Formats: sequence, structure tokens, C-alpha cells
Amino acid sequence: MDAAVTAGPRKAQQIYACALDLLAAEGFDNLTMEEVARRSGVNKTTLYRWWPSKDALLAAALTAAAPLQITIPDTGSLRGDLTALAAEIARLLTAEDTAAIAIAVLSASAQRPELAAVGHRFFGDRLEHEQQIFDRAVERGEIGPDTDTATVMDLLAGALWSHLILRGRPLTPEYLRATTDIVVRGVSA
Amino acid sequence: MDAAVTAGPRKAQQIYACALDLLAAEGFDNLTMEEVARRSGVNKTTLYRWWPSKDALLAAALTAAAPLQITIPDTGSLRGDLTALAAEIARLLTAEDTAAIAIAVLSASAQRPELAAVGHRFFGDRLEHEQQIFDRAVERGEIGPDTDTATVMDLLAGALWSHLILRGRPLTPEYLRATTDIVVRGVSA
Repeated sequence: MDAAVTAGPRKAQQIYACALDLLAAEGFDNLTMEEVARRSGVNKTTLYRWWPSKDALLAAALTAAAPLQITIPDTGSLRGDLTALAAEIARLLTAEDTAAIAIAVLSASAQRPELAAVGHRFFGDRLEHEQQIFDRAVERGEIGPDTDTATVMDLLAGALWSHLILRGRPLTPEYLRATTDIVVRGVSA
Repeated sequence: MDAAVTAGPRKAQQIYACALDLLAAEGFDNLTMEEVARRSGVNKTTLYRWWPSKDALLAAALTAAAPLQITIPDTGSLRGDLTALAAEIARLLTAEDTAAIAIAVLSASAQRPELAAVGHRFFGDRLEHEQQIFDRAVERGEIGPDTDTATVMDLLAGALWSHLILRGRPLTPEYLRATTDIVVRGVSA
């Protein structure tokens, strides 16, 4: 059964928030189910019944936590949709309630196989939602049907990450527009 | 005076290798000048005379260490140069002697301001070398003179990082070609 259903959606969101706050503050290694239970006021045994492991809880939290949801835009053009999506990704990477979580997941994914598996599921799940942007672009004849969605998202999200984290530069609207423009030109039919 | 000149280039390379091995194995926080001194057989006071801090040593090591050097290709076309550059970046991210170092820097940059500053200098320095690829492409009329080199490199390197680390997918020659093709089409005059 879906753990969130068993726990109740409001209680599940509260537990997800606790888990992600702890992830951001303590890192993956120092996050314990005990502490999540304590902070969210849930019995540890109950918590384990709903999510059998730390990985399972974090995977659920990353997928379902409200602040990490991205609105999939539908502006009528691939350029408009990807510009809006870039702004959403920039928000995730910089907003107060999400930046620490996003950065903890992105950083730890490289070094912690357990969290990497959680990250892969998270990004795979995200891609399924983003696919509709590209399906509509194919229908409108903007891109060919063989355009690889994952590659386009790698380019867009990877560029923002590189600019912000590796170069330490701000994600200005001009930067988002320039990046999106190159990607859209690069895949346009 | 340039520390590498004072230390002698061979000794400097040995110290850089020790520092980067420790960074990869222990992480930024656990790396100490004492341990670098011990492993490289250099007096700690001498090490501090050459590099005044851990940050200074790591910045020098990342910029000058032989395995982290990227050969700047000159194939006669932007597509050829960026394809070769993508293969070099893929090698850095996956080869046995560099992957752990690259991943330690990329991960820690997000969470450690001190290492982030080192990383920013490293990536800024890299960009200066890569600029010649774009200067030649402008001369050949392949791209406009206002093409932003940093954005192009963000897209290319960011995509490889995202694909390998976040999605856990292999960097196949086909993936490198597809990614480079989108970027080259996106910036072509």
C-alpha cells in the first residue's frame, strides 16, 4: 500500500519536510530514522512500517514533498516552456526552502551510492513529467520525434548547476534566456 | 614567487598528487597540511612557506596537477573541437586517477565556501584555455563574435555531469556526440 495513503497526506507531508530538513542540515550520513520519528512525533516502529528504510523515506520525500514539485508549463511553444522550466529549476536551486535540499541531493549523489539510487529515481520520475513538454513540441512540429528528452534536460539543468555552483555566478533572467535559446535552436526541426 | 618554481616542478607535482589523493580519499574537511607534509616528505614549515593555506595548495594542485590537465583540441572545426573536449571531460569524470578528485571538487564546491572559491578559480582558469577554441570558431565564421564561451561550456560540461552523476547513465560516444551536436547547432552562425 502507498505509505502516504496509510500515513495520511498531511502527516506524510510533515514527515517528508522533517526528513528533508534533516538531510539539508545534517547530510545523508547523519540523517537517522530515529531523529525523523522524534521530530515528526511519530513512533519509530510506525515510521518503519510506512517506509522500510531511510532510502525509501527519502525517495518518497523527494518525489512528493510540496516545495520540490515543479510546475510543468504549457505556454504554447517549446521556447516558452523551456524558459519557464529553467526558471523553475533556478528557483529550486536558489530558494530558501529548497536550495539546501537540492544541493545536498546533487552533491551527495556523486559520493553516496545509496543516495545516488534515490537521486536516479527522483530524476527519472521528473523526466516522466517533463516528457509532455516535448510531446507537445513534436505535435506542433517544433522538434523531430527522435529528440532525446533526457539529453535536452541534461543540457538545460546541467548548465544552470554549472553556472551557479561551479562558477559561483548568479542565475539571472538573461542567463536563463541565453541558455534556453541555445538549447532550443540546437533541437529545432 | 611562484611556489612551484621554489619547490621545483617535480617536487611540486608530487605534493599536488599527495594533496589531491587526500582530497579524494578524505574530503576537503579532513585534509590537513600536516598530512600532506608527512606523505610528501616535506617539512610542514616549508610547505606553508610555499603555499600559505590549504586553499592555496589545493588551488595550485587543481590548476597544475598533470592528470587534471585537458588538452585543448585544434581539429579545424568547432564541432570537432567540442567533440574532443567532451571526450576529455568524460575522461576526467570517469578515469581511475581523476574521477574521485573531480567528484570531490564538484560535490564539495556546493557545500564548502572555501572549496567553492578554489573551484571557481579552477573553472575560471580552465575557461581561459578553452577560449581559444571559440576564438578560432569566430575567425572561421562558424559562430558569432558575441557567443558566450562560459555558457557553451556550462551546457556541455553540465550535461555530462547530469547524465553521469544525477541519472547514473554511462557517457557513451553516442551520448557525447548527441550532446555536442545540439550545442554546436545551437550556437552556429
